[in-house]
Amino acid sequence: MNKAVILAGGQGKRMKADIPKPLFKVLGEPMLEWVITACENAEVTDICVVKGFMGDMIDQYLNGRYKTVLQSERLGTGHAVMQAVPFLSDDTDGNTLILCGDAPFIDEKTIKESLELHKKSENSVTVITAELDNPKGYGRIIRTESGISGIVEHKDASAEQLKIKEVNSGAYWFKTADLIAFLQKITNNNVQNEYYLTDTVSICIAEGKKAGAYKSANSDIIKGANDRKDLLNLNTYARMNVIKKHLANGIEFTCTDGIIIERSVKIGTGTEILPNTILRRGTVIGSNCTIGPNTVIENCKIGDGAVMNSVQAYDSEVKDNCNIGPFVHIRPGTVIGENAKIGDFVEVKNSTIGEKTAVAHLAYIGDSDIGKKVNIGAGTVTANFDGITKSRCIIGDYSFVGTNNSLIAPVKLGKAVYTAAGTTVTKDVPDYALAIDRGTLKVKENYTRQKLKNNK
Amino acid sequence: MNKAVILAGGQGKRMKADIPKPLFKVLGEPMLEWVITACENAEVTDICVVKGFMGDMIDQYLNGRYKTVLQSERLGTGHAVMQAVPFLSDDTDGNTLILCGDAPFIDEKTIKESLELHKKSENSVTVITAELDNPKGYGRIIRTESGISGIVEHKDASAEQLKIKEVNSGAYWFKTADLIAFLQKITNNNVQNEYYLTDTVSICIAEGKKAGAYKSANSDIIKGANDRKDLLNLNTYARMNVIKKHLANGIEFTCTDGIIIERSVKIGTGTEILPNTILRRGTVIGSNCTIGPNTVIENCKIGDGAVMNSVQAYDSEVKDNCNIGPFVHIRPGTVIGENAKIGDFVEVKNSTIGEKTAVAHLAYIGDSDIGKKVNIGAGTVTANFDGITKSRCIIGDYSFVGTNNSLIAPVKLGKAVYTAAGTTVTKDVPDYALAIDRGTLKVKENYTRQKLKNNK
Amino acid sequence: MNKAVILAGGQGKRMKADIPKPLFKVLGEPMLEWVITACENAEVTDICVVKGFMGDMIDQYLNGRYKTVLQSERLGTGHAVMQAVPFLSDDTDGNTLILCGDAPFIDEKTIKESLELHKKSENSVTVITAELDNPKGYGRIIRTESGISGIVEHKDASAEQLKIKEVNSGAYWFKTADLIAFLQKITNNNVQNEYYLTDTVSICIAEGKKAGAYKSANSDIIKGANDRKDLLNLNTYARMNVIKKHLANGIEFTCTDGIIIERSVKIGTGTEILPNTILRRGTVIGSNCTIGPNTVIENCKIGDGAVMNSVQAYDSEVKDNCNIGPFVHIRPGTVIGENAKIGDFVEVKNSTIGEKTAVAHLAYIGDSDIGKKVNIGAGTVTANFDGITKSRCIIGDYSFVGTNNSLIAPVKLGKAVYTAAGTTVTKDVPDYALAIDRGTLKVKENYTRQKLKNNK
Repeated sequence: MNKAVILAGGQGKRMKADIPKPLFKVLGEPMLEWVITACENAEVTDICVVKGFMGDMIDQYLNGRYKTVLQSERLGTGHAVMQAVPFLSDDTDGNTLILCGDAPFIDEKTIKESLELHKKSENSVTVITAELDNPKGYGRIIRTESGISGIVEHKDASAEQLKIKEVNSGAYWFKTADLIAFLQKITNNNVQNEYYLTDTVSICIAEGKKAGAYKSANSDIIKGANDRKDLLNLNTYARMNVIKKHLANGIEFTCTDGIIIERSVKIGTGTEILPNTILRRGTVIGSNCTIGPNTVIENCKIGDGAVMNSVQAYDSEVKDNCNIGPFVHIRPGTVIGENAKIGDFVEVKNSTIGEKTAVAHLAYIGDSDIGKKVNIGAGTVTANFDGITKSRCIIGDYSFVGTNNSLIAPVKLGKAVYTAAGTTVTKDVPDYALAIDRGTLKVKENYTRQKLKNNK
Repeated sequence: MNKAVILAGGQGKRMKADIPKPLFKVLGEPMLEWVITACENAEVTDICVVKGFMGDMIDQYLNGRYKTVLQSERLGTGHAVMQAVPFLSDDTDGNTLILCGDAPFIDEKTIKESLELHKKSENSVTVITAELDNPKGYGRIIRTESGISGIVEHKDASAEQLKIKEVNSGAYWFKTADLIAFLQKITNNNVQNEYYLTDTVSICIAEGKKAGAYKSANSDIIKGANDRKDLLNLNTYARMNVIKKHLANGIEFTCTDGIIIERSVKIGTGTEILPNTILRRGTVIGSNCTIGPNTVIENCKIGDGAVMNSVQAYDSEVKDNCNIGPFVHIRPGTVIGENAKIGDFVEVKNSTIGEKTAVAHLAYIGDSDIGKKVNIGAGTVTANFDGITKSRCIIGDYSFVGTNNSLIAPVKLGKAVYTAAGTTVTKDVPDYALAIDRGTLKVKENYTRQKLKNNK
Repeated sequence: MNKAVILAGGQGKRMKADIPKPLFKVLGEPMLEWVITACENAEVTDICVVKGFMGDMIDQYLNGRYKTVLQSERLGTGHAVMQAVPFLSDDTDGNTLILCGDAPFIDEKTIKESLELHKKSENSVTVITAELDNPKGYGRIIRTESGISGIVEHKDASAEQLKIKEVNSGAYWFKTADLIAFLQKITNNNVQNEYYLTDTVSICIAEGKKAGAYKSANSDIIKGANDRKDLLNLNTYARMNVIKKHLANGIEFTCTDGIIIERSVKIGTGTEILPNTILRRGTVIGSNCTIGPNTVIENCKIGDGAVMNSVQAYDSEVKDNCNIGPFVHIRPGTVIGENAKIGDFVEVKNSTIGEKTAVAHLAYIGDSDIGKKVNIGAGTVTANFDGITKSRCIIGDYSFVGTNNSLIAPVKLGKAVYTAAGTTVTKDVPDYALAIDRGTLKVKENYTRQKLKNNK
């Protein structure tokens, strides 16, 4: 079976944060996750992650999804892979892919096609390479007729070799058994006293085994980040690629400024995304919606034809043709029915809102179940928390809740209930009833004349 | 009389939406509208639009403003223009302009000057051309001393002809009578079996009539869009051009990110536009305002010296020196008087607000007429809708409406009325009166001690 | 002692606003302020600003911080400096730096090193220069072995001289006494009838005194603005430079669109800034915060680990680990304690909020002092203004204020007070007490059935 070893022990000192470099995020996901996704898409799912700097955070992030091994001392890439030998040893018949956990743009096609070449050529090692216009600093690939004769580091390259634009990406396929054998032979007899994985290539050739190279069409597999500026560049690159994909799918953008769409987000054809909209993981948006401006949606399902204008919505569902916003906050556990209207300065939390219901302004609906064609007045709030426990409010279909009401949960309003403005609803109200809690309005004439006089 | 025929039958398959290509929008307006505006500005107002794919949508959009004819089969540009022959035939003395409905940047100057040349040269046809640095794919203009000898398609061009940078924009002036005659002679004897409008040029020359070319200084007249990416590019181009115009007029921008200003918007000198501000059709903004960030204004008149910070305003008027925001929603039919203050989390709808009045926070003012120097307390809402009808609230000058009031419309508060906090105003209140609706505050001592004890 | 004269008399006609050109802003500060800051950083603090067009605005802006002199007629740069002769004459032993008030990117290092060279070389005048790829329009520096032999204006330059890329920045160091002497000798015998400061260089050389040039490594010292487009370019340049500085400090940016950070802002390592965030003067942000999107912060101190999502905050303090937003307005004079939660549609003004207190939604807290672990219900507002005076509300630790309350200031709630929903709190409430002001809820059955019947 084929395996993958992902090197995730690096620190990223210039990032100036105490987290492992592969956990820095590109479009909301750790670079490590991008690398894992590429493996999974290429159906290489027997993965071992080599952790090092702040290794516990890698385990915490992976949460048991994949094996990890610790490289407790940082003695080079070869040494890192050595830590995975026990992982490799349980099945040495197949091939092993080595990837850098901080080179997020490795892709399924590159992994699959390089494996194909690796197997067809019967290589012991196949270096995954890319061609760069400016190869400065990278190890150059020395091709022969049948494969490669080595990788020459930039500093060791001759003038002629410096002209080579095909470079080592740091990713490789090995025959697993050969990899284990090569690792036993690499030494740290060098200036840095490190064990370099690259040395396996010369060992392979010295032993008369076949080394080859697969040149990926996607030179971005080389891209990594040593500081926050590089990381911003990776983000910009990924951000624009995602937007291009949605453009090709028929999504409308007038201006892409401030638009961040994570790669897992799905958007239906004909939907328009306005500036400064952030769509995070798990979000699925229907067709012919208008989303934004100034909208943040995380892990929500949005139906067709919905309008989400200046909304923040989390872990919720908004059904077809809803009109939400501007200035709305939808918190987790909410389901908003078709054709509902949630207007300005409304928070909905952990509630269901029926179809064609309107919560048009200045309201808080928490832990509530509201029927269809209900109208909630401005200034009305559900008092779902008494300081100790949270309870639910239930409001029947066709009800009309007046302005500035407080609904003291647990409480149930029946069907077509009408509550007067300013009511505090403290007990259940049956179907078709009016609930009212109102004193008598007293009017004291000439009050302000007197008040102003007294104030002098 | 001069006429224009605008070809608007295309589909734009790669846009992935079932609307005619000329209805895709650039800066909020269909490309067709840009073309029509150019004609109107050049005083060519006898216009016929040739519709085809989803032609009903063209009629719906034009809403009777201009004639349309249907090209029911899509047999080429020549065939499209043939559909307009009845339109052309009622007056064949003048000239006819042919334009592409999906090339939005044709401009008044190009139309006017090309017509001038067309008439002065006594051409039967004048091709409107432009010079491109990269003319690949476009038909090249073959100039002679007195005019042109033809248009050579890219695929038919010789090596020498391929070097020509002057290309056919797809727009033409014809003597109307000649156009009708030429159209009768074009055939579909070609690989695509289509009738090409371009063939009229060779027919013209073959008949010994004069063909000429007018090279526009504005090479953007060539620009079109075949997919959403192209359309985004047209938007970006138009967006930055509008911003440049406002910069030249003395408008201040620190950063143009997320700023979309439609071309009809007017802005007074010295006004600052902050990022992420969208100004839509019909909006007129005064001098020395501060608009944005995160503001959307559509079809509003904003006076001098106004501040609009994180506001959404639609179909309303805001007078001089108002201070609006942050987080305000102004809905259609609103007029806000000079020096008024509309603060955070306030919605105003279909209301007039007097000068120097303050609605500083958390309020809904709907269907209301509020006088000058009024103060509206936080949490106060007009109950303008009783579930069946909407009614108005009237509040006199100098009134002070307390916090958390509900005003049950229809209701009228006189001049200098004072309402106590928490009041539900259910009847009219005369000038200078206090309105109060309040029980007696009961205090139960040691309540929470007991409650916490019970909770254990 | 060393002095500086800053020329700030220009108009900037193409800016189309009646303010002196050096008062146009780059990243929120007048260009003049950038020049002054550079002088202050280089410890040249005996400064005279030469004002001219709309000179009163310069005085108003400086507010007495530095001397100003008026150039009442605009007769050239030499004439401008002449106005400063009385300022220079009180101490002629040292050196004088001449700077343009509208070239904001002069820097400390350039000022210090040019002074060093000026003194070491015993120059009478040292021209501060820069090298430009495109020097068109600028005066070229003619170097000799020991210094310079002159400055040749672009229009007077020979073909050979036009190739020189080192140009005059318009900034100079003079021996003060020599400057005064040279100024007496310059004339306005030229086409424009102006007195050019540049002429002092040739006078210096003619008198056999030493003239030299210091080439700054920072060619941006040349940058100025003649119109709003130039000014936008200066802003973009400054904006990206500030962001680069924060990237180097370990601040995270996924996308920099709409982010404007003024140069005085400090941000702790590991903080993430989301798009469309504006951080203004005086703001200090801690480590590991998440700031933005759509956030404006001016003159605030934000603790470590705070979240500020879609917030506008002014002249306030937010302590560690607060969670603020979305849609929150914090107004001046507010202090929010550690771990407090200020949620959607809340305004806090001139108030202190205790640690772990929650004001989760739809509330106005003005002129109030709220203890720790307090819960404020949705719809609750402090009635801090009675139309004539503002008073304070005091709420003790552990209190629970119900929904839709109005607290009529001045009022004091003790420790662990509980108020019922819908209460108007009109008097002080002792520790542990419940405050309630509620009628009896009346329920009229079959109300809506009747209502709907009547409506037919």
